[in-house]
Amino acid sequence: MKKHYLITPGPTPIPPEVSSKEGLPVLHHRTSEFGVYFVEVIEGLKYVFQTRNDLFLITSSGTGGMESAVANLISAGDTAIVAASGAFGERWGKILASYGAQVVWVREPDGQAIVPSKIEEALKKNPQAKAVFGQHTETSTGVVNDVQKLGEIVSKTPAVFVLDAISGLGGQELRTDDWKADVVVAGSQKGLMTAPGLAMVSVSRKAWPLVEAAKSPRFYFDYRTLRKSIPEKETPYTPAVTLIVSMAEALRQIKDEGIENVWARHAWLAHATREGVKAMGLTIFTQTPCNVLTSINVPAGLDGKKIVKRTREEYGVSIAGGQVQLEGKIVRLAHMGYMGRFDVIIGLSALEMMLHDMGAKIELGKGVAAAQRHLQNPPAAFAPAPAPGAAAIR
Amino acid sequence: MKKHYLITPGPTPIPPEVSSKEGLPVLHHRTSEFGVYFVEVIEGLKYVFQTRNDLFLITSSGTGGMESAVANLISAGDTAIVAASGAFGERWGKILASYGAQVVWVREPDGQAIVPSKIEEALKKNPQAKAVFGQHTETSTGVVNDVQKLGEIVSKTPAVFVLDAISGLGGQELRTDDWKADVVVAGSQKGLMTAPGLAMVSVSRKAWPLVEAAKSPRFYFDYRTLRKSIPEKETPYTPAVTLIVSMAEALRQIKDEGIENVWARHAWLAHATREGVKAMGLTIFTQTPCNVLTSINVPAGLDGKKIVKRTREEYGVSIAGGQVQLEGKIVRLAHMGYMGRFDVIIGLSALEMMLHDMGAKIELGKGVAAAQRHLQNPPAAFAPAPAPGAAAIR
Repeated sequence: MKKHYLITPGPTPIPPEVSSKEGLPVLHHRTSEFGVYFVEVIEGLKYVFQTRNDLFLITSSGTGGMESAVANLISAGDTAIVAASGAFGERWGKILASYGAQVVWVREPDGQAIVPSKIEEALKKNPQAKAVFGQHTETSTGVVNDVQKLGEIVSKTPAVFVLDAISGLGGQELRTDDWKADVVVAGSQKGLMTAPGLAMVSVSRKAWPLVEAAKSPRFYFDYRTLRKSIPEKETPYTPAVTLIVSMAEALRQIKDEGIENVWARHAWLAHATREGVKAMGLTIFTQTPCNVLTSINVPAGLDGKKIVKRTREEYGVSIAGGQVQLEGKIVRLAHMGYMGRFDVIIGLSALEMMLHDMGAKIELGKGVAAAQRHLQNPPAAFAPAPAPGAAAIR
Repeated sequence: MKKHYLITPGPTPIPPEVSSKEGLPVLHHRTSEFGVYFVEVIEGLKYVFQTRNDLFLITSSGTGGMESAVANLISAGDTAIVAASGAFGERWGKILASYGAQVVWVREPDGQAIVPSKIEEALKKNPQAKAVFGQHTETSTGVVNDVQKLGEIVSKTPAVFVLDAISGLGGQELRTDDWKADVVVAGSQKGLMTAPGLAMVSVSRKAWPLVEAAKSPRFYFDYRTLRKSIPEKETPYTPAVTLIVSMAEALRQIKDEGIENVWARHAWLAHATREGVKAMGLTIFTQTPCNVLTSINVPAGLDGKKIVKRTREEYGVSIAGGQVQLEGKIVRLAHMGYMGRFDVIIGLSALEMMLHDMGAKIELGKGVAAAQRHLQNPPAAFAPAPAPGAAAIR
């Protein structure tokens, strides 16, 4: 018998109360019974997003949600600014290029955060830019960006601010309306504690004229069609009904915990993970780490790909490696969604054991002990500052 | 207590062995464990499609799968022939129009099948046409088209044949390769007996040059990217893992039954349903009925929308009404996927009771009895003719 543990930044573990709902008989999606779930899920997501904007559910991977933002906002020839510092920032650029956009890259090295003043500058140099595309947390490197500052800068221009919050939402503090994020994309399989297969997108009033004007071909992802279905309490096309019904349960759990407490829990787990990593004698890949995953530099002489493979095969613990140019150079431990103290302990202890197996200078238990010291205390100390502007959305 | 029954043409009921698999812990999609399921599902789908073509899984509604065919085959300005006789045929035209295609409509009235000679004519008049888009079974009307004949006609031209088999696949006989269907689109929630959320597309060798040449913007739906991931036994983006794992079980059940037996079972259930409807004194909406659903004309003076609503609310039996111009005029009983004798009995008896309640001249039990007479015998008599060309794909 080998028990399996998912310590990866998506998919993530799912509460049994949520996954068991997936197995319930399928509801028809054009019925009042489904409508009740639909409304509950849309309202629950608006709470997690902290938004009063329109919010849509799309049956697709998160990448489909990203493409929906491009298809609905950008026409061929439009200028778009991409604030990138990793694989998912690059993905914005690739999608935009395939739609014929003129991409203005503001590219920071992997592992660094976006520098807000550079976005300000890019907007000044490109006043015709329709939108700035960026990441809340860059999953490939574990970086968090200063979304509040970026939102403030973009809000002073005619451009809209489009945020990939796929890995950050429901883990890292995000206040969509207060922070002026016009279009926010998320996915079901990370902080939302549901199986993969659903994307969700919020669209601000500022973004709608762009949606109405955009000439890119689109049908399935068309926000105008999605908006028309909202009063009917349904989606335009047969959605992933069982995922939606199970997500209602996940959103109930988030609401019961309270979004600020969810953010505090993630900050607490992230802090303990980082302290554990440092106590092991390893280093964190970034100076601006997010709270939903931790990227760790692989000790010299070892191959990160092998660490990931062997940790899964020998211990049943799935962790993530580096992508593209970071392949083999970092490993990533997630602490997002349905995760608590002992998920941190499992991730750190598996990493200690594997590195020790592979001949690294690792003292077993040292990283674990450092994490334990922080995990003994409750997460309350990590509570975020009160909402900066309007009252939080309940 | 009210027990609920799904007698709608998608979503459809799911075997408990399938739905319970949805609730299993989420697998990471970049692991050998998931790869085993991925290969099994792709191979299982090729068997149900009866194809050796490339076959891709896309996390989306069936409509996303339809759009993927347009985005990958058609560029703005291209000519496309749409063979339509219902709402889903119209959908092909709408998607094509949004991609800037020149649509040549071959439109038959709702409830009639496509006339192959008219497609032959349209291809002669439009030799520049890149593709013919049509339906295997038109879900909105319950019509089946002569796919074999249509495929033969299109195969003699440079155009490719694109088939929406969303409601027909895994119910109505379909031999993708023998019948020369170049691009076939299906969805998880009908004959494939899985929850909604997955689309699948097969792509023939003849279609690939069009895919390589098409200039329409696309990223998430790009067949070139999907093809690259197949040798890795994965999808390019995080897929609906739990749906894929549960579909593996559904495909096992189809394989155990044998696809020809599955087709025969559907023909048998359809025949019994039609005989039951006629015995009730009602009429079938179409002269060319398919085997996966039956469309029934609503008796004069009654409103089909009310029949659907009340049957669900009062009896817990979900049936479907008519769409767009057929709203209120027909009701549709499905017999697709995880359905047997008693699903036909439930659908017919609920309809009898409701029509009787609403004052129609209905003798309770008469339609049910007629169906029973046919359902006493096994479905073997409905076995299809042997594969016309190459041997069936096992």
